[in-house]
Amino acid sequence: MPGSLPHPSRAEIQLTDVLFALSDPERLAVARQLVDGPLDMAECSMTDPNLPKSTKSHFMKVLREAGVIRNEPNGRRRLLSLRRDDLDARFPGLLDSVLRG
Amino acid sequence: MPGSLPHPSRAEIQLTDVLFALSDPERLAVARQLVDGPLDMAECSMTDPNLPKSTKSHFMKVLREAGVIRNEPNGRRRLLSLRRDDLDARFPGLLDSVLRG
Repeated sequence: MPGSLPHPSRAEIQLTDVLFALSDPERLAVARQLVDGPLDMAECSMTDPNLPKSTKSHFMKVLREAGVIRNEPNGRRRLLSLRRDDLDARFPGLLDSVLRG
Repeated sequence: MPGSLPHPSRAEIQLTDVLFALSDPERLAVARQLVDGPLDMAECSMTDPNLPKSTKSHFMKVLREAGVIRNEPNGRRRLLSLRRDDLDARFPGLLDSVLRG
């Protein structure tokens, strides 16, 4: 069964980490896929189909450690969700402007 | 006399490049120093006083190439300015949320 991974608390989320996490086209595409709600990690696709699985895992780690997404165990799978409430509270308007951009 | 440097046109500015340029605390601090108007590059200070001059130049290059700042000759010196109109037109609300964050 997949285990719990560490996530920064709302107060620990740093603006520069969030900007860095969203500064890669593949990572930004992941965030955009989560706008309408959580997704099973297996359903979350990369734009470049040739990316190795390890790169996908690393992207998810950067997004999680920056506080952009949650990555939580869900039975035998993992559920990804956007930390919209936390990001909106910390940096009002940022996520909307990035997801629209 | 300092020469002209290339700048992306408004239409060429990419969201991921802007996010990357602002994802470093020193580069973000440069952008914040330009909020109230252009500054002579020599007056634009780094948070870490021990940064080598080459690092400062590289930061300015990243910001210019991303379309965040203009870096233009001004007599024997260089004038830095924030491309607020261009950024606001391309990514409404982004710059304000980042500068406030």
